[in-house]
Amino acid sequence: MYDIIVIGAGPAGYEVATLLGANGKSVCIVDKDESRIGGTCLNEGCIPAKNFLETASYIKKSTYFKTTGVNFTLDSFDINALKKNTSCLIQDLKSGILGKLKKTKVDIKYGTASFIDKKSIKIHSENEEIISANKIIIASGSKHKDHPLMNLHKNKILSSKEVFSLNEIPKSLLIIGGGAIGCEFASFFSSLGTKVEIAEFTPRLVPIEDEDIARTLKRELEKQGIKIYLNANVNSYDIKENEVNLSMEINKKIQDKSYEKVLISIGRSPNTNALDLEKANISNTRGFIDVNSSLQSISNKNVYAIGDVINTPALAHTAYYEAKRLVRIILGKEILKADAIFPSVTFCTPQIASIGKSEKILKEEKVDFKIKKLFFKVNGKAKIKGDDSGFVKILYENETGKILGSSIIGNEATELIHQFLIAINANLYLKDLEDMIFAHPTLSETILDTVSMK
Amino acid sequence: MYDIIVIGAGPAGYEVATLLGANGKSVCIVDKDESRIGGTCLNEGCIPAKNFLETASYIKKSTYFKTTGVNFTLDSFDINALKKNTSCLIQDLKSGILGKLKKTKVDIKYGTASFIDKKSIKIHSENEEIISANKIIIASGSKHKDHPLMNLHKNKILSSKEVFSLNEIPKSLLIIGGGAIGCEFASFFSSLGTKVEIAEFTPRLVPIEDEDIARTLKRELEKQGIKIYLNANVNSYDIKENEVNLSMEINKKIQDKSYEKVLISIGRSPNTNALDLEKANISNTRGFIDVNSSLQSISNKNVYAIGDVINTPALAHTAYYEAKRLVRIILGKEILKADAIFPSVTFCTPQIASIGKSEKILKEEKVDFKIKKLFFKVNGKAKIKGDDSGFVKILYENETGKILGSSIIGNEATELIHQFLIAINANLYLKDLEDMIFAHPTLSETILDTVSMK
Repeated sequence: MYDIIVIGAGPAGYEVATLLGANGKSVCIVDKDESRIGGTCLNEGCIPAKNFLETASYIKKSTYFKTTGVNFTLDSFDINALKKNTSCLIQDLKSGILGKLKKTKVDIKYGTASFIDKKSIKIHSENEEIISANKIIIASGSKHKDHPLMNLHKNKILSSKEVFSLNEIPKSLLIIGGGAIGCEFASFFSSLGTKVEIAEFTPRLVPIEDEDIARTLKRELEKQGIKIYLNANVNSYDIKENEVNLSMEINKKIQDKSYEKVLISIGRSPNTNALDLEKANISNTRGFIDVNSSLQSISNKNVYAIGDVINTPALAHTAYYEAKRLVRIILGKEILKADAIFPSVTFCTPQIASIGKSEKILKEEKVDFKIKKLFFKVNGKAKIKGDDSGFVKILYENETGKILGSSIIGNEATELIHQFLIAINANLYLKDLEDMIFAHPTLSETILDTVSMK
Repeated sequence: MYDIIVIGAGPAGYEVATLLGANGKSVCIVDKDESRIGGTCLNEGCIPAKNFLETASYIKKSTYFKTTGVNFTLDSFDINALKKNTSCLIQDLKSGILGKLKKTKVDIKYGTASFIDKKSIKIHSENEEIISANKIIIASGSKHKDHPLMNLHKNKILSSKEVFSLNEIPKSLLIIGGGAIGCEFASFFSSLGTKVEIAEFTPRLVPIEDEDIARTLKRELEKQGIKIYLNANVNSYDIKENEVNLSMEINKKIQDKSYEKVLISIGRSPNTNALDLEKANISNTRGFIDVNSSLQSISNKNVYAIGDVINTPALAHTAYYEAKRLVRIILGKEILKADAIFPSVTFCTPQIASIGKSEKILKEEKVDFKIKKLFFKVNGKAKIKGDDSGFVKILYENETGKILGSSIIGNEATELIHQFLIAINANLYLKDLEDMIFAHPTLSETILDTVSMK
């Protein structure tokens, strides 16, 4: 009998397990096999995607650096070397996670888990095993959402997972879905010379970001040669030997198109099907575990759920935070806020990041707010880095100047946004930032210049 | 009769002039000619140096990206293209400054300025002109400090200014001075294949940074093939046709060495010699204008001084701040703090940045403090960027956890440091940062991981 069983060894699972282990709890973590340690994030999500993107971005920058005298010729791009480098990186980070689990005395068991009663699970591997605990934490993550019409097809119709196994760069690619992941892969393949098109069902890209961010992103991606179809839907498709033919409805007009490959990235759905939730009386809504504000199943008090299996943003950093919050709850320590602000980050070129309240939310909440927005083209360091596209935008309370939210599109947006993470958490006002000394020449100066606008 | 004359159109000068102009003052700014608009920073300092460094850093990274499959061959590096690109960048930013001066109705006069009495200056150009004002602001900046023994020699013994005019990359280079500028040029030339050695008079590099930062920097520069001599002094030198021969005393041993070129970067000295300060009764100490806490000359109440001509750090961002602070003083507005914290930033590889109190200062002030330090090698994003050297260090009050200072060495340190700029200004504690959600995968996560260390 363990104190705690954790199902799933992704960011939510390994974080909660090591924190509880470090606090003296007897903990067992269960996942399919060692290849799953680190979850989607490490094995087929954030880490490989950003490694792929960084490499593509390096190649892309060679065009700019030609103007500063760097005459590079790309003799070849070896995707197998990138895959090998990515495997090593994953293995390196995985060793770190396994080391932490060992150090905090967490038992690791491999196999697929399913509930057999309110406090026990069966682990299916070569030998079946049943283990029990006072508390069970579900952190089994998510998988790509299925397309309503199109099935995945080996080598022709891919999910983000299969991208990391490609043996060559396709000549043409349709990406279905213009969210964060779709836009990241568009940047990646476009930088490597693929003719990339994006088909997005809604009237805009990156639906969680402000509209001006989406518009600027669209313009910047188009400048890079990426075609973007909004209000676009697939009516039918046909897989041929060398291509996929599609009949698409774009802005209510039917168009026939063909591509070497199609990538589907229309979101994530929770990994809860195989858990036999009903055997432990764990209620769910469309696969998401129903939890109360303490991350506890509303129908089984022994069970908690964190990460992508609950209906909060499917991000590694919100998963880490939910893990930390749950540990405080279980240990009876000072509670972390359930509604803490968190950065949204997209690693396409240009990068996008936002934090705090969006324009849409502020309008819905009828807050009297104003906007300051400054373009990176006035920033020397952005020019030096060869990309002065994008802007910094700050939303603030009209009467007081209190900072309520920020969106950034441009160079290093995913790092810069943390200045607003701290400023908003510290309840700072525009004037507070305006009176600080930002270093020259940095991208961060754009933040000072934005708050200083008259 | 102007309200205000500003002598010098560098960061301190153009900032103070445009801010006063925007507030309705009649302002005249004086500098030698249009080539000096933007001062040292724009024309032969921060901006060209960082542009040179960014390009060198891009070339250097090709070694790492070979491991991710990018097989670039450097056909050639064209330093004239870099010089041309840098000129365009300077011209672009200069147009911005000129535009701002015009928009705020600041008169620009070209010529060298010298005082003729307490309220008037003579401008020496083709035609002499005398102008007067109620207040005169000296912002005439600084020039490289002369070496006690060695004189500059066209093409053989250079100051940082001459580097930007080189027509080819030297095969070997001795850099005299291991401060920020010396280390930046060491990175630059080393990345381009020059055999670089640094001779530093004191026992350590970057004397304003903490000792562990200096040690790590030394090790990282040495890994790149840069030789570093500490406690090193030049006893004599001899300029030959193709090289400079030097007799150096290194750790009390005499060694003879020769290099294609020598770069002297041992600091800056104020540009006040030609101003005829005594005619306006403006006192100075070793060339630095003596000012009170309101940036006012202690001997002439009509005169103020900001930027490199006063004995504060010779940085563009402290110059901007002094300009803002002086404007508030002159306009009688809410006063800015005289002792505001400011980032120190060095753009070598790896980058260095620090803010708040250093270990040395805290020890001197007998503060009971502790240190948290975490290495970037645990950070996924640092690995993805191909450089996981360096660390984040936080100095905090032992009893309370209040953040007092931070030093960062590594990838994007010069941007990351601004998170501590904001945190320290907002009086945050380790716990405040620990409870925030940092985005994954970012370099910024290292800050979260540092504050979260047990």
